[in-house]
Amino acid sequence: MTRIGRLSRFLPILQWGAQYDRQALGSDLLAAVIVTIMLVPQSLAYAMLAGLPPETGLYASVLPIVLYAIFGTSRSLAVGPVAVIALMTAAAVGPVAAQTGLPPTAVALTLALLSGLMLVIMGILRLGFLANFLSHPVIAGFITASGLLIALGQVRHILGVPGGGETLPELLGSLLRHLGETNLWTLAVGVGALAFLVWTRSGVSPLLQRLGVPARAAQIAARTAPVLAVVATTLLAWGLGLEAKGVAVVGEVPRGLPPLTWPPLTPDLLRALLLPAFLIAVIGFVESVSVAQTLAARRRERIDPDQELVGLGAANIGAAMTGGMPVTGGFARSVVNHDAGAATPAAGAFTALGLLAVALTLTPLIHYLPQATLAATIIVAVLSLVDFGILRRAWRYSRADFAAVASTIVLTLGLGVETGVTAGVVLSLILYLYKTSRPHIAEVGLVPGTQHFRNIRRHEVETDPEVLSVRVDESLYFANARFLEDWLLERVAGSSIRHVVLLCSAVNEIDFSGLETLEEINRRLGLAGITLHLSEVKGPVMDRLRRSSLLDHLSGRVFLSHYDAIRSLSGARADQEADSPIPMTRGEPS
Amino acid sequence: MTRIGRLSRFLPILQWGAQYDRQALGSDLLAAVIVTIMLVPQSLAYAMLAGLPPETGLYASVLPIVLYAIFGTSRSLAVGPVAVIALMTAAAVGPVAAQTGLPPTAVALTLALLSGLMLVIMGILRLGFLANFLSHPVIAGFITASGLLIALGQVRHILGVPGGGETLPELLGSLLRHLGETNLWTLAVGVGALAFLVWTRSGVSPLLQRLGVPARAAQIAARTAPVLAVVATTLLAWGLGLEAKGVAVVGEVPRGLPPLTWPPLTPDLLRALLLPAFLIAVIGFVESVSVAQTLAARRRERIDPDQELVGLGAANIGAAMTGGMPVTGGFARSVVNHDAGAATPAAGAFTALGLLAVALTLTPLIHYLPQATLAATIIVAVLSLVDFGILRRAWRYSRADFAAVASTIVLTLGLGVETGVTAGVVLSLILYLYKTSRPHIAEVGLVPGTQHFRNIRRHEVETDPEVLSVRVDESLYFANARFLEDWLLERVAGSSIRHVVLLCSAVNEIDFSGLETLEEINRRLGLAGITLHLSEVKGPVMDRLRRSSLLDHLSGRVFLSHYDAIRSLSGARADQEADSPIPMTRGEPS
Repeated sequence: MTRIGRLSRFLPILQWGAQYDRQALGSDLLAAVIVTIMLVPQSLAYAMLAGLPPETGLYASVLPIVLYAIFGTSRSLAVGPVAVIALMTAAAVGPVAAQTGLPPTAVALTLALLSGLMLVIMGILRLGFLANFLSHPVIAGFITASGLLIALGQVRHILGVPGGGETLPELLGSLLRHLGETNLWTLAVGVGALAFLVWTRSGVSPLLQRLGVPARAAQIAARTAPVLAVVATTLLAWGLGLEAKGVAVVGEVPRGLPPLTWPPLTPDLLRALLLPAFLIAVIGFVESVSVAQTLAARRRERIDPDQELVGLGAANIGAAMTGGMPVTGGFARSVVNHDAGAATPAAGAFTALGLLAVALTLTPLIHYLPQATLAATIIVAVLSLVDFGILRRAWRYSRADFAAVASTIVLTLGLGVETGVTAGVVLSLILYLYKTSRPHIAEVGLVPGTQHFRNIRRHEVETDPEVLSVRVDESLYFANARFLEDWLLERVAGSSIRHVVLLCSAVNEIDFSGLETLEEINRRLGLAGITLHLSEVKGPVMDRLRRSSLLDHLSGRVFLSHYDAIRSLSGARADQEADSPIPMTRGEPS
Repeated sequence: MTRIGRLSRFLPILQWGAQYDRQALGSDLLAAVIVTIMLVPQSLAYAMLAGLPPETGLYASVLPIVLYAIFGTSRSLAVGPVAVIALMTAAAVGPVAAQTGLPPTAVALTLALLSGLMLVIMGILRLGFLANFLSHPVIAGFITASGLLIALGQVRHILGVPGGGETLPELLGSLLRHLGETNLWTLAVGVGALAFLVWTRSGVSPLLQRLGVPARAAQIAARTAPVLAVVATTLLAWGLGLEAKGVAVVGEVPRGLPPLTWPPLTPDLLRALLLPAFLIAVIGFVESVSVAQTLAARRRERIDPDQELVGLGAANIGAAMTGGMPVTGGFARSVVNHDAGAATPAAGAFTALGLLAVALTLTPLIHYLPQATLAATIIVAVLSLVDFGILRRAWRYSRADFAAVASTIVLTLGLGVETGVTAGVVLSLILYLYKTSRPHIAEVGLVPGTQHFRNIRRHEVETDPEVLSVRVDESLYFANARFLEDWLLERVAGSSIRHVVLLCSAVNEIDFSGLETLEEINRRLGLAGITLHLSEVKGPVMDRLRRSSLLDHLSGRVFLSHYDAIRSLSGARADQEADSPIPMTRGEPS
């Protein structure tokens, strides 16, 4: 039992597999059928978006789903190709394939393998926290900009013109140059599919409900609508011979099992893919984990982020071995899986079987599917990712967060996905370090009738002209240590102050540079005849100070509470009552 | 008056120049003579250390001193070539000169100009705080490792063998290979000079004092002792014809004024020198400002770091225009200047005149000065920089600081100065970010008889099983926001808790990611029927929360003090007295 218990932490399948019953089987099978119908057009579309043959998308949805079901911790997450990762794959694979002379499919395999290995290693080393350095505004900005780039990149398939690009200027320039070459048949199919898909997003569910279909079933049916567009436009292209009229179709898709593949591993290729693979691993993980957490919260379950890394990593390694492309947990497919009633990860395995059946039997029928239909599917899917409202919300709340989200959006649109997300992370860190290097320092006084001290500039408080109470609102570390020293020496110059008490309730850490600064402050205040005291030093900070020689040299004392310090230092004038403790002068509120 | 006042902030010379009198002139002249005698061998030695002709060191001590006197804020800082900057100059100039085919002197001019411009720009933009990102341990480790590299690099001059290198393995390897070629005459001169200089460090001052010389004068005399070694070994080399016996001497030094020079500015050269120039600017500034602050503290003066950047920048630009090399404020020369009684920056100007006189008249006499003597001067000077005690002190205080100092030392010794200091800074930042990404979170309770709350694991405190008091010891920002969410949801699972109060006294900032996390925590606790309250939210943080919608959704309230929160939430059971406020259960102390 304990052996299984321990093992099941690394193989979550052992937990739910033991209790699997007929009811769960029924729920899982139904969910799998619905998700399969939804995934066929999506998989083909995202492979196209990544610049890869359509079957790659199908292959990337079979073994990865099974591996995630074994190693992952979310019960309803569905992994496979998703829009943003497909865009990042396109950005990485295109140039590297051109540079190395390898086929894009081979480069995509290596990219998936590298990402997968990185994810597994991060999981084993419990480095899931690294993903936290992608702040919410950076992610939101990145997803919005990526959505816009993806949608714009698909417009050429709707128009039936050549071109392309990886940044907003490139995409716009290419579209303008080729606008005159628009193929009207393609445009008709594309706009038709687009209109139908937009309508299904809002119109189908109410219509079905008016016809008596229960609300949830109606919503799920709406999600599978793209397959109708696929079937209708494929039949149309076949019946009207649209391929001969210049409408680009998917063409030959090989029928059969996903192939066993071994990614090429030349040093040049690995070096070129190192950064893109890392970015795909981290972005994919962040996206996947946030989907998994959202779904887990609905069912009061918890997921384990470090184990999620292993699950996703295994899925990507699986994709690399079976002719796929980088994968992650997708929002739309997971929500549908969840809403359709998937009870266990087995639903994912059944979906994999469904897609396998499609790959084995239906692929020849896909020949006449117009690329414009797939482009319409992608556009409708990604436009829901675009949310410029994040700019307004961030602006209202904080200029620093706004700067991070705005530059992530601008740089992603202007210079591409890799530069954009890297710059966003770096800028967030720089802004954070800048803020902590100039900490907020408040002079505090006693709130009358309490033992509580607040900023004299914000509250009506009592102070003593001979005792300076200073609260530092930041850990003392190398980047801000000198700032406090300058502030304090400036403040006491030419005053009647005899005691300085540093209220350390907000000092969460004092590093070696901070310690040396405190010693320097103590020495300099001592030269001016001023005593330095500390109050409310936290346990972990105090433990460390005890290992230094500061406490031996400290001219004053360390008080448990700031109230004790003030009562003791204001001496005989102090009163024992909490309500009017010390006859003090009033601080200036403002 | 106000016009002069404003102008004098940027031209500090206007402040002290107006009050200059005969007494100050006397003090300044005496200091200048002593410093000049000390600087002649030092300037020649550091030029040699940088791989440049000896006169470069003299030239770099003339105009830069004058420019610093005009623009700088310290009254006793003496600028010129210093050991660590000379080592960094050697590391930058050697490879770039070989690569571009330019003479090393020309590359050194461009390096000084670039560093100077960077310093002036940083001063104008008030970017002096950037230097704070060099933590004390990183600087201490870097200086120690540099001192060791410099001393070891000079050993070959003592032995009279060829070779060299920029890292510990290179230097040791070169010495071992050439050990057999040792020139015994050179060794005799070198070891003699070394022994004499070591003795003057400790023996001269007590001897002179026993002969009746006042203590301070004796100490200053000891500092000028190197000039005796220079004179004696020069006479010896000339008298015994040592140059013909294979003893390397300084050789021809041109007599004359420092030349007017214009640094070469090709794009390739600028690109190659950008990083070294930046590192020299920052390290030079940190070294100089810490010397200036130490001396200013002795006289109760204050220096302005941003104006110091301008002063140092002007000095370096001056060095670039007059055949010099990168300069900064040196510790030894500044202390001697200060101790010899320099009253104003005019002492520096007089020192410049003294060195000018040397350059105009005495340079032919320097011909026979053995390089071994200069090497001995350098070794004795830099060994006082080496302080491995920093390793022990950092280890005792904190493992993170130890890791920063140890890796700075190891990487500087193993891979050179530029890699070493860059790696030290980057590692410090990573360690800091790692620490803040896993904040200390404490469950707190009331210290009996007070209104003060402390960690239940460290103090005997009172708690209420239905009210969870949590203190987060870090700002809530993107890197740690999820950590708090996980901790809280874990803690309340399966408990009887009805209220959670976040004590925010240590939360110095909540960024947009932190805000979204608080909203998520509020929502999830709400689903579990638990109310979320905040207490002791700081003014600046509260201002920002008011601009968000969190306060509209918050299931609980925001309390001014945590004591109010607990008194109010523990309801009718609460008592108004501070001494026994609430009948609570005892927390578990440990």
